[in-house]
Amino acid sequence: MNLKRNFFYRKAAAINPQRIIMKKLLKNTSRKIGQSPGTLIYTGEKPPGIFKCNLIAYNKDQYVEKIVSEPEEILQYLKPDEKIWINVDGIQHPDKIGKLGELFKINPLTLEDILNTAHRPKTEDLGEYVFIVIKLLKYDENQLKVEHVSLVLGKNFVLSFQEDEKDEFEVIRENIRKNKGHIREFKTDYLTYRLLDWVIDNYFSVLESVGDKIEEIEDELLAKPARETLHKLYRLKADMILIRRAVWPLREAINNLEKIESELMKNGTSIYLRDLYDHIIQIIDTTENYREMIAGMMDIYLSSVSNRMNEVMKVLTIISTIFIPLTFIAGIYGMNFNTNASPYNMPELNWFYGYPFILVVMFIVGLSLLYLFKRKNWF
Amino acid sequence: MNLKRNFFYRKAAAINPQRIIMKKLLKNTSRKIGQSPGTLIYTGEKPPGIFKCNLIAYNKDQYVEKIVSEPEEILQYLKPDEKIWINVDGIQHPDKIGKLGELFKINPLTLEDILNTAHRPKTEDLGEYVFIVIKLLKYDENQLKVEHVSLVLGKNFVLSFQEDEKDEFEVIRENIRKNKGHIREFKTDYLTYRLLDWVIDNYFSVLESVGDKIEEIEDELLAKPARETLHKLYRLKADMILIRRAVWPLREAINNLEKIESELMKNGTSIYLRDLYDHIIQIIDTTENYREMIAGMMDIYLSSVSNRMNEVMKVLTIISTIFIPLTFIAGIYGMNFNTNASPYNMPELNWFYGYPFILVVMFIVGLSLLYLFKRKNWF
Amino acid sequence: MNLKRNFFYRKAAAINPQRIIMKKLLKNTSRKIGQSPGTLIYTGEKPPGIFKCNLIAYNKDQYVEKIVSEPEEILQYLKPDEKIWINVDGIQHPDKIGKLGELFKINPLTLEDILNTAHRPKTEDLGEYVFIVIKLLKYDENQLKVEHVSLVLGKNFVLSFQEDEKDEFEVIRENIRKNKGHIREFKTDYLTYRLLDWVIDNYFSVLESVGDKIEEIEDELLAKPARETLHKLYRLKADMILIRRAVWPLREAINNLEKIESELMKNGTSIYLRDLYDHIIQIIDTTENYREMIAGMMDIYLSSVSNRMNEVMKVLTIISTIFIPLTFIAGIYGMNFNTNASPYNMPELNWFYGYPFILVVMFIVGLSLLYLFKRKNWF
Amino acid sequence: MNLKRNFFYRKAAAINPQRIIMKKLLKNTSRKIGQSPGTLIYTGEKPPGIFKCNLIAYNKDQYVEKIVSEPEEILQYLKPDEKIWINVDGIQHPDKIGKLGELFKINPLTLEDILNTAHRPKTEDLGEYVFIVIKLLKYDENQLKVEHVSLVLGKNFVLSFQEDEKDEFEVIRENIRKNKGHIREFKTDYLTYRLLDWVIDNYFSVLESVGDKIEEIEDELLAKPARETLHKLYRLKADMILIRRAVWPLREAINNLEKIESELMKNGTSIYLRDLYDHIIQIIDTTENYREMIAGMMDIYLSSVSNRMNEVMKVLTIISTIFIPLTFIAGIYGMNFNTNASPYNMPELNWFYGYPFILVVMFIVGLSLLYLFKRKNWF
Amino acid sequence: MNLKRNFFYRKAAAINPQRIIMKKLLKNTSRKIGQSPGTLIYTGEKPPGIFKCNLIAYNKDQYVEKIVSEPEEILQYLKPDEKIWINVDGIQHPDKIGKLGELFKINPLTLEDILNTAHRPKTEDLGEYVFIVIKLLKYDENQLKVEHVSLVLGKNFVLSFQEDEKDEFEVIRENIRKNKGHIREFKTDYLTYRLLDWVIDNYFSVLESVGDKIEEIEDELLAKPARETLHKLYRLKADMILIRRAVWPLREAINNLEKIESELMKNGTSIYLRDLYDHIIQIIDTTENYREMIAGMMDIYLSSVSNRMNEVMKVLTIISTIFIPLTFIAGIYGMNFNTNASPYNMPELNWFYGYPFILVVMFIVGLSLLYLFKRKNWF
Repeated sequence: MNLKRNFFYRKAAAINPQRIIMKKLLKNTSRKIGQSPGTLIYTGEKPPGIFKCNLIAYNKDQYVEKIVSEPEEILQYLKPDEKIWINVDGIQHPDKIGKLGELFKINPLTLEDILNTAHRPKTEDLGEYVFIVIKLLKYDENQLKVEHVSLVLGKNFVLSFQEDEKDEFEVIRENIRKNKGHIREFKTDYLTYRLLDWVIDNYFSVLESVGDKIEEIEDELLAKPARETLHKLYRLKADMILIRRAVWPLREAINNLEKIESELMKNGTSIYLRDLYDHIIQIIDTTENYREMIAGMMDIYLSSVSNRMNEVMKVLTIISTIFIPLTFIAGIYGMNFNTNASPYNMPELNWFYGYPFILVVMFIVGLSLLYLFKRKNWF
Repeated sequence: MNLKRNFFYRKAAAINPQRIIMKKLLKNTSRKIGQSPGTLIYTGEKPPGIFKCNLIAYNKDQYVEKIVSEPEEILQYLKPDEKIWINVDGIQHPDKIGKLGELFKINPLTLEDILNTAHRPKTEDLGEYVFIVIKLLKYDENQLKVEHVSLVLGKNFVLSFQEDEKDEFEVIRENIRKNKGHIREFKTDYLTYRLLDWVIDNYFSVLESVGDKIEEIEDELLAKPARETLHKLYRLKADMILIRRAVWPLREAINNLEKIESELMKNGTSIYLRDLYDHIIQIIDTTENYREMIAGMMDIYLSSVSNRMNEVMKVLTIISTIFIPLTFIAGIYGMNFNTNASPYNMPELNWFYGYPFILVVMFIVGLSLLYLFKRKNWF
Repeated sequence: MNLKRNFFYRKAAAINPQRIIMKKLLKNTSRKIGQSPGTLIYTGEKPPGIFKCNLIAYNKDQYVEKIVSEPEEILQYLKPDEKIWINVDGIQHPDKIGKLGELFKINPLTLEDILNTAHRPKTEDLGEYVFIVIKLLKYDENQLKVEHVSLVLGKNFVLSFQEDEKDEFEVIRENIRKNKGHIREFKTDYLTYRLLDWVIDNYFSVLESVGDKIEEIEDELLAKPARETLHKLYRLKADMILIRRAVWPLREAINNLEKIESELMKNGTSIYLRDLYDHIIQIIDTTENYREMIAGMMDIYLSSVSNRMNEVMKVLTIISTIFIPLTFIAGIYGMNFNTNASPYNMPELNWFYGYPFILVVMFIVGLSLLYLFKRKNWF
Repeated sequence: MNLKRNFFYRKAAAINPQRIIMKKLLKNTSRKIGQSPGTLIYTGEKPPGIFKCNLIAYNKDQYVEKIVSEPEEILQYLKPDEKIWINVDGIQHPDKIGKLGELFKINPLTLEDILNTAHRPKTEDLGEYVFIVIKLLKYDENQLKVEHVSLVLGKNFVLSFQEDEKDEFEVIRENIRKNKGHIREFKTDYLTYRLLDWVIDNYFSVLESVGDKIEEIEDELLAKPARETLHKLYRLKADMILIRRAVWPLREAINNLEKIESELMKNGTSIYLRDLYDHIIQIIDTTENYREMIAGMMDIYLSSVSNRMNEVMKVLTIISTIFIPLTFIAGIYGMNFNTNASPYNMPELNWFYGYPFILVVMFIVGLSLLYLFKRKNWF
Repeated sequence: MNLKRNFFYRKAAAINPQRIIMKKLLKNTSRKIGQSPGTLIYTGEKPPGIFKCNLIAYNKDQYVEKIVSEPEEILQYLKPDEKIWINVDGIQHPDKIGKLGELFKINPLTLEDILNTAHRPKTEDLGEYVFIVIKLLKYDENQLKVEHVSLVLGKNFVLSFQEDEKDEFEVIRENIRKNKGHIREFKTDYLTYRLLDWVIDNYFSVLESVGDKIEEIEDELLAKPARETLHKLYRLKADMILIRRAVWPLREAINNLEKIESELMKNGTSIYLRDLYDHIIQIIDTTENYREMIAGMMDIYLSSVSNRMNEVMKVLTIISTIFIPLTFIAGIYGMNFNTNASPYNMPELNWFYGYPFILVVMFIVGLSLLYLFKRKNWF
C-alpha cells in the first residue's frame, strides 16, 4: 500500500505545494526545542555545498574583488577608507557564519535569524548595525521558489546572506565594477537600498508570471474547464499565499527602516526608502487584485461545472418527458379489449389506416412537446 | 489553433478588461529591473506623438499663452512677477521631460513617478515643490479610460503632466483667459486646487455613467436575464475596481495635502482642500454603494437562473408524474390473462363499454393529478 | 417598446427606490462640473415654492415672531440683547440664500453645502460660526423621505435650513413661545442642541416603523412566503441603507462637535451633546440589529423557497417510483409467451383467479412501497 | 382572521423573542419625542409596584438597616462618619426617583438614564459622583431576562437602582451584616466594585445555561434533527445577541472606569477593576466562541437536511433505474410479431422454458444493476 | 433511553471536544459566584495528588536542589546571594498555594489567577513581582491538552506553577545543574525568559503534529473522502480554536512584558523578549495558515460529496433516458392493431425478419444515444 500512499502524497503535493514547504519549516524549527538561544543551526532544506564569500572592497576611486572560503581571509581587506560588501552564498555552514559573526561583532540572536529560513521579513536596529530579513522570490521551472536573504548594514560594511548557492546580486556588483550609479560614491546604506530594490524589483517579474498564468487559466476556463484547471488554480492560490507572506511583513519592515534613527541610515536615503515603500504598496495592491481574480475564477469554475451538470440533467429529463406520453399512447393500443364484444371497444384497431394514423398522432405529440419546450427556451 | 486561442483571448478580454490593463502595467514596470533609480522610462501604452507644452504665464493684470515644443523655449516666459502654468500633453518623451525637470529642479525620482503610469495617487512634499499624482477617469466609447496625471506645485509655477495628447484642462485655461474665478489673483496653490477639483468633478460624471449602466442592466435583469447581462455585470465590476483603485488612495493623498506644512500650501486653500476631501468621501460612498448594488444584482441573476432551472425541472417532472400512472393502467389492460379460463380474469375486456370506460378513468386520473398539483400550487 | 421599458423601469424602481435617489444626487452634482467653487446651485429635486423665513427673536423676558420673504427684512430684528433663530423653509432660492449668507457673513463654500442636498452629515468649526449638516428622516406615505437640514450656530443667532417647505420645528418654537424648558434662558448652543435632538428623536420613530414592517414581513414569511414578500424585503433593505448613510457620519459629526474648542460651544452643553451621542449609538445599534434581521429573513425566504421546491420534487419522484415497479409487473403479464407450447409458459394467465391475484399483488407492492417510504419519513 | 394573525405572531415571537424586546424599547423611547431633556419617564415594561428603598448605613463598627418608602425618610440616616448604600427596587416611580435625585444632587440627565431601560452600559464621571449603567442577565423560566441596573457612586453613598422588584443584591447585604470581606472597612468604591462583580459573575451562570442548551441541541442534531431543533437554535442565537449587547459596551465601560481620575476611585480599587476587566474579556471570549458554535450547528443542520433530501432522491432514482430496463425487456416480449410468419419472429415465445428463462434473465439483470450500484457505493 | 443519550453524547464529544472543555471551565468559574475576591479555589479538573515543590537555589558557583512538600521548608533555602526557582507541580492544594503566597508576599488576586485554569494568558506588573499566565500545549494520546502555567518573577526568586503533576521543565533544570547557557550567571528574568521560551517552543511541535494531521486528512480526501474524514476535520478545527485561544492573547502579553518599566526586567533581556515575540508572530502566522487550509479542506470535502452525488444522479438518469425510447419502441409493436383489417396495420409484424430487424433498430438507437452522451462528455 506504500506505493499507493506515495501516489496520493504526490497528488496532494501537486495540489498544495505550500503545505510541504510549511511542514519543512516547522520540522526544522522544532528540531531546536530546548536549545539555548543563539545556538546556530541551519533550518533550511538545501544540501550544504562549499562555503563561499564574494567580497568586494571599494571606495570612490578603486575596488578589489575576491572570492574567499575562510572568514579569516576577509580581515586583510578591511581598510578604514574603504567600504566592503561581503556576499555569502549558501548558509548551510553554521560554524563559518559564526566566525564571520565574531569578526563583525554580530549578536548570536541575529546570526540565528540569518540561519532560520522560516523567519519572516523584518528590520531591526541593533545600534552597531541594522539587520534586515527579506525573501527573494523567483519562478524556477514553473515552481515558485522562496529564498531567505539577510542583510547586515554596518558603518562601512554590508553583509548579505543568500540561502541559495546561485548568486543573485551579480547585476549590482557589475554596477560597482563599472562605477555606474552612485554606489561607489555614496555610503553603505545606498548599497543596502540597491540590494533591497533589486529583490523587490524581482517581485514584479514574479507577479508578471502570475499574471501570465491567470491569463492562461482564464482562457482554459472559457474554452473548456477541466479538473486540471481547478488544480492549476489551487496551485496559483498557494503561490499567492507564499507571495503575501513575503510581501505583507516587508511593508512594515521597510516602514520601520524609514523610522530608524540611526547614524547608519541618516545619509539622504530616506527618499529612496519612500520609493521602495511605494513599490511595495503597488505590489500589495496587485497581489490583492490577483487574489480576488483567482477567487473569482474559482467561483466561475464551480458555477460553470454546476451549470453544465444542470444542463445535462435538463436535456436528459426533456428526452424522458417526450417519450413518456408516447409510451402511454402505445400502451393504450396494447390493451386487449375484446373488439368483438362491442363496437366501442378499441374500434381503432380495426380501422384501415389505424396504425399509420396512430403513428402520425405520436409523431405530432412528440414534435409538439419538443416545439413547446424549445419555445419556452428550455433547451 | 492560433485563431481559436485568439478568439478566446478576446472573449476573456471582453469579460475582464481590467486584467489586460494590469498586465501591461506590470510588464512595463518589470522592464526596468536592474536599472538605477531615477532612470526615466515611459511605462504607458500610448504611442509617442509630438511633444507639446501648453504654457500660460499670468498675473492679476495680464496673461501670455504659448505652445512650445522644446523645454528650453520656456525659459523666456519665466518672470518674477508672474505665475506660470505649464501643461504637458503626452509623457512619451522621457528626454524632454528630463530637460523640463532640470529647468525646474525636479528630483529624478519624481520624474520617474511622472512617467510611471502604474503609480498610485499620492502627494509628496519635497520642500521646493509639492508633487501630486492623480488619475483622470473618463468613459470613452463605452470603455473606462484611466489617465495618469501628475501635478508639480512650485512657488510660482505649476506643472501638469497628462498621459493623453487630448487636453483636458481647457476649461481652467478659459477661466484664466477670461479672469473668471480667483485663479489669476490667488497663488499657485489655488490653481492646483482647481486642477484637482476638475479631475475629481469628472469622477462624478463617470459615476453617473455607471449609474446609467446599472439601471440598464437592472431593466434587463427584470425583463429577461441572459448570459450577456452577466458579462455586462462582470465588465461593470471590473470598472468599479479601476475606480476604487483611483479613488481610495486619493483620499489619503488629499488628506496628506491638508497636513503639509509647506509655505506653498499656507495661503488659505485649506478650506478648499476640505471641500475636495468632502467630495472624495461622497465619491467613495457612492462607489461602495454601487459595488454593493452590483454584487446584489449578480446574486439576483444567479438565483433567477437557478430558479428558472428549478421551474423547468419541476414542470418536466410533473408531466412525467401524470403519465406514469396512466401508462400503468394501460399496462394492466395489456396483460394477457385468459378470459376464457375464468370469469374473474379481466372481465372488463369483454364489457360492452369497457374501452370507453377505461379511457374515461384514465382521463379522470390524469385530470385529478393535474388538479391536485395545481391546488398545491406546484406549478 | 417605450411603454414596456417604462413598465420595467417602474418595476425596477419598486424594487430599488434607493437607486433612483442616488441617480438624482449624482445628476445634480455633475451638473456643476467646471463651475468655480462657491457657485450656489440648489441640487435637490423639490420644485421651488415661495421663499419663506420663519424668524423668532427672543431673550429671557420676551419674544417676537415674524414670517419674512426678503432677507433684508431680517435686519430690523437683530438686537444686541436678543438671540435670533431664523428657520428657512425650502432652499430652492439660491439668490435669497446668498443674500442671507452675506447678512450673517457665511462663507460661500458653506452656502454651497447648504444647497447641496447630496452632502453627508458633518460639523465644521469656521471660527465665527459652527456649521452642521444633518439629515431628517421620516416615513411619508410608506416611503422613506430624506430631508437635507443645515444649521448655522453663531454668537447670538441660529440659522436652520430645511429642504422641504413643510416646517418640522414647530414643537421647538412652541417651547420658546411658552418659555418651556431652558431655551430662552440659555445661549444659542442650547437651541442648536434642541434642534439636533428633535431630528435625532425622529430617527427613533422611523426605526419603530421599520420594526413594524419587519414584524409584518416576518408574519408573511411564516404564513405563506410569496415573491411580494421578497420585494418588500428589498425595499426595506434599501431604506436601511438610506438610514445608515444618515446615521453613521452623524456619529462622527456629533463627536467632532464635542471636540470643537469654540467659544460658541463652551457653555455647559457638553453634557447634552454626550446625551445626543448616546442616542446615536443606540440608533446605530438598532440599525445594525435590523440589518442583521433583514439579512436573516432573506436567508429564511430563500431556504424556504428551496425547501418547498425540494419537497415538490420528492413527492413527484415518490409517485413515479411507486408506479414504475407496478408497470413492470403489468408488463410481465403483457408478454406473449405461448401458453400452449409449454405448461411453464405463463401458467398464471390461465389460472382461475389469476387476474384478481395479480391485481392484489400489485396493490400490496404499491402499499408496501408507500409504507416503506412513509416509515423512513420520506414524505 | 385575527386569530390566525395572532397565531403567526406567537409563532414569530417564539422564533425571535428579541424582536419583541427591541420593539418595546423603541416604542418607549419614541414616546418621549419632543420632551425637554431631563424629563423623567420610566421606559420599561414592568407594571409599577410599591416604591421601596432598601437602606443600609454602615461603618467599620456598626450598621443600621431599614426599608423606607419615602425618599425623605432617608435624610435621618445620613451621618458624616458612615457610608450609606441605598438600593431601589423598581424604577417605575419617576416622581420618587426625582426626589431621591434632588436629595443626592443627581443631574436630571443621569436620572433620565436611570429610568431609560433601553440605555446601553456605560460609565460617566460627573465630578460629584460616578454613574454606571449595567445590565443584569438571568434565565427565568427558560427565557433570558435583561434587567436595567444603575449605580451611583458618591463620596460616602452608593445608590443602586434595579428595574425588577426582586432584590438581587441580598448576598452583598449579608456580607455587610456579617462583616465578611472588606466592604465595611473599605470606601464606597469597593462596595461598587462588589456590586459590579456580582452582576458580572451572573453572566457566567447565564453562559453556563447557554452551554447546556448548546449541548442539548447538539445531541438532538446528531440523533434526529427536526424543524424544532432549528427553532431552538434561532432562539439561542437571539439570546446571544442580547448577551453581546450587554457585554460588549460593558468592556468599554469598565475600561473607562479604570481611567477615571476621580477622588472617588483612587483608593486602591484599580487592581479589582483590572480583575473585573479580565472577567469581561473571558465572557466576551466565551460569547464569541458560542456564537461560532451556534453558527456551525446551523450549518450542520442545513447540510444534514440537504444531505437527507439527496439520499432520498438517490434511492428513489435507483429504484426507478433498476425497473426501467426490466420493463423494457417485458415490453419486448409483449410485442405482437407474428411467430407464424417466420421462424425468426420471437421464437422465444414458443420455447418450452421461454417464460421462466426470461424471468430469470430479468432477475439477473435486476440483481446485477443492484450489485453494480452497491459496489460503486451509490447507496 | 439513557444509554442512547450517552451514545450520542459521546458522539457529540468526539466531534466537538472543545465544547466539553469550555463547559468545565464555565462550571468551575460559576461555582465561585458570590465569593469575596481573593478566595482561593482550584477551578481545574485534575484530581488532587500530593503537593510537591521542586526547589533549586543557585548562584554562579553552586546550586542546591530539593523537593519539599510543605511551603515552610522553603524558608531555609532563601539566601541573599542566591537566586531560587520554585516549581510547583499540581495546583490542586489552595491552602498550600496560599501559604506559599504569604511567604513571597503574593497578592491574593494573583493567587486566584494562578488557580483559575480558565484564565487567559496575560502579564501583569505588580511592583514587587511580575506575574505571567501562559498555556502549555501538548498532544497526549492524540488529544490536545492545555495546561495552565503561571510564572511569578521576583527580585531573586522565580515561582512556576504547573497544573499537571508531570514536570515539564526538567530540561531547564538540567541546564542549571550542568551550568549550560547563561541561566546561572544572569538574573532571574533570564530564567523566566527560558521558561517562556520552552513553553513557546512546544507550540512548534504541536503545530508540527497539526501539520501531520492535515497531511493525513488531505491524503484521505484525495483517496476516498468518508464521513470519518469530516469528523477528523471538525476535531482538528476544535484544536485550532484551543491553540488560537492560547496564542493570540500571548502575543499581547509578551508585548506588554517588553513595555514593563520594572527593575526586574531591565537587565538586557529585551533582545530575548523581542526574539520570543518573533516566534509568537511566526506561530500565529502558521496557525492562521492552518485554519485557512482546514477551511479549504472542508470546502473540498463538501464539494466532492456534492460532486459525487451529482455524478450518481447523472449516470442513473442516463440509464433511464436510454431505456425510455427503447421501451417506447417495444410499446409500439405491442399494440394490437388488426393486421387483417388492412395491409397498413403494422405490416412489420408479419415480415419475415421483422423481429430481428426491430431488435437491431433498438440496439442501434440505444448505442446511438450512448455514443451521443459520451461524445457530449456527459459521463
